[in-house]
This record gives sequence, structure tokens and C-alpha cells, in this order.
Amino acid sequence: MLSDSRFENRRRALASRLAAKRIDAMLLTHLTNVRYFSGFSGSNGALLVQKDLSAQIATDGRYTTQIAQEVPDIEAKITRKVATELLSGLQGPKRVGYEAGHLSVAEFERLEKACPEDVQLIPIQEVIEDIRVRKDAVELEKLREVATLANQAFEEMLEAGELRAGVREIDVAASLEYRMRLKGAERTSFDTIVASGPNSAKPHHGASERIIQDGDIVTIDFGAFKAGFNSDTTRTVMVGTPSDFAREIYQVVLEAQRAGVAAAMPGTPTKDVDKACRDIIQAAGYGEYFVHSTGHGVGLDVHEAPSAAQNSSGELEENMTLTVEPGIYVPGKGGVRIEDTLVIRAGAPENLTNLDKELRIIEA
Amino acid sequence: MLSDSRFENRRRALASRLAAKRIDAMLLTHLTNVRYFSGFSGSNGALLVQKDLSAQIATDGRYTTQIAQEVPDIEAKITRKVATELLSGLQGPKRVGYEAGHLSVAEFERLEKACPEDVQLIPIQEVIEDIRVRKDAVELEKLREVATLANQAFEEMLEAGELRAGVREIDVAASLEYRMRLKGAERTSFDTIVASGPNSAKPHHGASERIIQDGDIVTIDFGAFKAGFNSDTTRTVMVGTPSDFAREIYQVVLEAQRAGVAAAMPGTPTKDVDKACRDIIQAAGYGEYFVHSTGHGVGLDVHEAPSAAQNSSGELEENMTLTVEPGIYVPGKGGVRIEDTLVIRAGAPENLTNLDKELRIIEA
Repeated sequence: MLSDSRFENRRRALASRLAAKRIDAMLLTHLTNVRYFSGFSGSNGALLVQKDLSAQIATDGRYTTQIAQEVPDIEAKITRKVATELLSGLQGPKRVGYEAGHLSVAEFERLEKACPEDVQLIPIQEVIEDIRVRKDAVELEKLREVATLANQAFEEMLEAGELRAGVREIDVAASLEYRMRLKGAERTSFDTIVASGPNSAKPHHGASERIIQDGDIVTIDFGAFKAGFNSDTTRTVMVGTPSDFAREIYQVVLEAQRAGVAAAMPGTPTKDVDKACRDIIQAAGYGEYFVHSTGHGVGLDVHEAPSAAQNSSGELEENMTLTVEPGIYVPGKGGVRIEDTLVIRAGAPENLTNLDKELRIIEA
Repeated sequence: MLSDSRFENRRRALASRLAAKRIDAMLLTHLTNVRYFSGFSGSNGALLVQKDLSAQIATDGRYTTQIAQEVPDIEAKITRKVATELLSGLQGPKRVGYEAGHLSVAEFERLEKACPEDVQLIPIQEVIEDIRVRKDAVELEKLREVATLANQAFEEMLEAGELRAGVREIDVAASLEYRMRLKGAERTSFDTIVASGPNSAKPHHGASERIIQDGDIVTIDFGAFKAGFNSDTTRTVMVGTPSDFAREIYQVVLEAQRAGVAAAMPGTPTKDVDKACRDIIQAAGYGEYFVHSTGHGVGLDVHEAPSAAQNSSGELEENMTLTVEPGIYVPGKGGVRIEDTLVIRAGAPENLTNLDKELRIIEA
């Protein structure tokens, strides 16, 4: 692999933010962030980025070859101690940031013991989240790729007739996951949801052995993980003859979801995207049944910044990602959720999960 | 669900160990442990167990119904604050244990702020691991169930001819995972390994797009997760005509693995299980190519106590689980690993992953 300036660019963004906090170096231990700032994808590693942009990375002997290939521009230390090794070699006095939201108390104590006397550990939160929130061209390409394979798998699963009355929810999930895997997904981004009939009223249902029935609403929330990046899509379909209730809430959620998508542009407060969806659901009389927030960013984590909720702060910016996923869940009757993952653009957003959203009825 | 005394028994074991450390109550925040001590399987929750065995559990509004069903014997607080709510209600003076290995520094600081003045937080490690290491009858039954479904899926995948020359590693992984899913697995326990040809020399290879060739060694390391429990099995097969080298290392690893299984009984130091395997591999001249430890426990986590490595301490006890998984990995030439998951018994261990271990050759 050739040296890749995007990792250095990311480290530069980190260093400049740290300077504003008078931090001399940042120790990264959360593997997702180690990967983001270096390219290293192994299961054990730590990265130290100094304010002069010099960097050191450490991993254990299993990854000697891999780290040399993935991170040609940083000299790697091969050691069992990893993060403590990076710290113990520092020349103080220095203020060194650490990831307080991702390091256990026990791990922190081990790091503290390894620090030279004049190295002080400073908890850092949100700085990295804030850098990651705007996606670069390479990230966007990977997000497109993984969303596309997931969506193709979903369409093929439907076309093959694997979602129908008589099969179990878990059969539908298995078929969808199998198709995503054959298209190169390394795993799912989260446990696939196939929520049929009364289960559709549970926003966090998984995929059970319940047999799908004629007349069921079926909500499928799915995502694939590939090369570090995640996807997140939800579609709700009807099997056999939908009830008037099912048709009604479908149209309300669809209208709400489209309003949320239309609101998603640079400069919009994230809470206004939530409001765009929520207002329509409330006006239709279902406000109390929209029991979660509207959306979140998708990237190296399937749930990351920004957040679009009633109490969110902050505005959307170009190249952020955001899901728009309103839902209505009426206990005992059923529910509907429709979700797209967007990339915020100067004009209309790019929809990474551009599958048909009109009501789909599957013959029972 | 009827009240289930096994959760209370586990809490009793916890309370008695805490008494020895003069701890008045234990706050559990790691979801796997919340589940172990209460039965609650939601994705947000905390459990407080006091030394008099009284207990409180908290989760958010998504799980109101579920927690009442899963945990009929503990009154649940439904709150957004969860762990901090449990702490802030305490009457001091009290010493309250917390899971230092599973709580981030940032989360710990939030808890500390919520504590009444005379409640002191005390880091606890290894106590819970030590309770979990001996499996009860219900756990063993669930471990058997998940191992059986994974093993059946593997056999069916082989019988269906889905591992053969001409298919990609990822195709084999997809087929195996699909079959596990149809048999009720909620997900894999870890990313499935299908390491063919030169990839078999990499113990931590995943499943790539490499096409399996005539003459390949193929190592498949797989596990399923169901109802909280994991499985872990590795088999190595040959496609087409194996080389003399492949046959030789297969027989060495098989002999080593059988020696490790034979050594696994109550009272055996865990490091002696490692030694039983390692001695045979060393005697055959491949000692430097057995680059990992011999085994680990399997339960709610796929890697948990005990550990069987060269420097492990402690002895095996009845109803512990242990993998025995020696391997030989010769860079550029290939590798073999064979792994079973055992339950330690008074006599010979119970093998949860009792698939054929003789050299299997798949016609190319």
C-alpha cells in the first residue's frame, strides 16, 4: 500500500485541535480511532500522535507484517505492552490526552503507572468525534460501497421470495445476511431486525422464530460492515392484505421520513430534522407512538455523531452522514419504520440507501 | 417466566465474596454480568446487589415489559439514568464495588458524581470472573445447545459440498453462518475464520475472497451465539491431494490436541494442558510455529477464564469450560489448528464440539 496522505491529514486535524487545549500528544487506544488515524485494522494496537505530527504506533507480534503494510508512514513498535510502551518512552514534561470515553478504569490505572513522572494524562472527549463527523472522499466511497451491497442483498432477498407468509423472521434475517456476506460484508453492523405482526410494534425487536402471517406488517432494519464502514437501512413491507391501520401509519411515516430528508441540509439544526418528522406524526395523532429519536451519523461506528433528537444541539454540515428513521409503534397493533442514510450535501442530500419507499405488498 | 433460583444463587455467591472484601454492595454495569446475575438481556441496564442479598435493577423505558418478564424477582426502576439512579438512592455509609475492568473513565466520573457523600466506590476485578468460571447445569445445557447447532451446521456445510476447490473463503463462511443462523444462532461468536492455502499459516486470518485451490489446507474456526452463550470449534480439512508437509503437521497437531484433551481434568494446572500440547509439537520440531496459547474458557463471553497458556496460574475444576486448540503455522507453507471446547468432569472431559478429527480430504 502506498503512503496515504488522508491519515496524515486526519492526524493534522487532531494535532491542531489538541494545540488549542494545550495538549502535547494524544494517545489513541480505541481501535476504531487507531484505524481512523493510521489505517491499522488489527485487533490490538495503540497510536500516539504528538503536536509536531510525529507519531508512533504499537501492536503485538501477530501483526508485524500487517502493520508494516497498512501503516507504511509510521514506525511500529512490536511489543506485548502496546499503549504502556508508547507512554513509557515519552520525554516530559508533557500533557498527554487519552480517550476517557473508551478506556476502562483498570486500563487507565495501568497507563498511569507506565507514565514518566512528568507526563500528565488528560481526559479527552468529543474532539475525535468532532473530527470524524465530516467524512472525506475515501470514507464516502466506502460508505457508498457497503450501503449498496446491503441494499442489493435486500432487493434480491425480496425478489427471491424469501420474505413471505409461512417463513420465520429468522429465516428472512438469515437470507438477507447470507446475501450481504456473499457480496463481501465481513459481518452485520448490528443484529438484523425482522419484526413481523405484533413484533413490528417493538422498535428493538430482533428476529425471532415467529412465523410471518398473511396481513402482517414486517419491518426489516439491517446493516453491513465492510472495510471498517457500516450501513444502516430500514424498510417496512406488508404481507398479504394490509389493514387500514397498517396502510394509514405507513403513509404517515413515509410522509414524515420524506420531510426529514427534505430538511437535511447544511446549516439546519439537527433537532429541526427531528422536528420535521415529529410534527407530521404528531399532526396525524400518533405523536406518543414515535418513541425514539430521528437519526444518527453512520461511519466507522454504526451509531456516531451527529444526533438528530428533540434535544440535540448543533447544525448539519456538508459531508456529515445522518439517518432519518421516524417510526410509529402502537403496542398490540403494529408499527412502521422507514430509514435512509444520507450524506449532507450543499443541495439535496445524497441518499446512500435509495431503495423504493412506496408501500410494498408481498402476495401472501 | 417463573422466578428462577439460579440467579439468586449467583447473587448469593457474589455477596459472600464481597463480604470478605468488606464491600457493602456491588454495582454491575457490564451487560453480560447484569444478565448473569439477573437474567435481564436488554441493551441498557444496571444491577445493584447488596450484602443482605436485596437487589435493585434499572433500565430505560424501552424495556419495561421485558425486564418484568425476565426479572420477576427484583423490582425494576425505569429511568434514563440507570446506574446513577441506583447509586444516588443509596443510604450510606457504604463501600460499593464497581467493575473497574468494564467501566470507562468517563462513565466512572458520572457515577462518582451521583454518589451520596458517604458512599465510596471501590474497584473490583476478578471476583465475578471467578464466580462465572464454574458453570451451572443451566449454563452447561445452553452451551451444549449452541455448540451442537454450530457443529451440525458445519457438518451440513461440508456434506452439501460448499467447501471445495473453486469457491472463495468468504463463500464457505457465508454458507456456514447461514446454516447456523437457520438453526437459531442470533449471530456468530466472532468473525468466522476460513483460512486456505497460504492463509492457513495466519492464525488470525478472517475469510477473504481468495479462491480455494486443489491441494489447499483449509482451517475453519467458527462459533455461534444463542441465548447469551457462545461456542468455539476449529477443524482443518484438506482439499484435493494434501502435501506430505500438510499431512505431517496435521498428525502432529492432532496428537497434541488429543494430549491436551487427555490432560484436562480437575486438579490439573491449566499450564499443564498447554504443556501437554506444546511438548508434542516441540518434539516434532515445530515448537517455534505454535505461536499462541492452548486454550480459554467459553461461556457468556467466547473468551473468558480460565486461560491455558505457558504462564497461566490456577488449576482446572469440575464444570469449568476450556478450549484445547494447538496449532502449527509455518509462514509461506501453511498451518493447521484443531480445537474442541471441553467441560471439565471428574473423569474424562465432556467434549461439546465432538466432530470427527481424523484427517478429512475433500475431493477437488
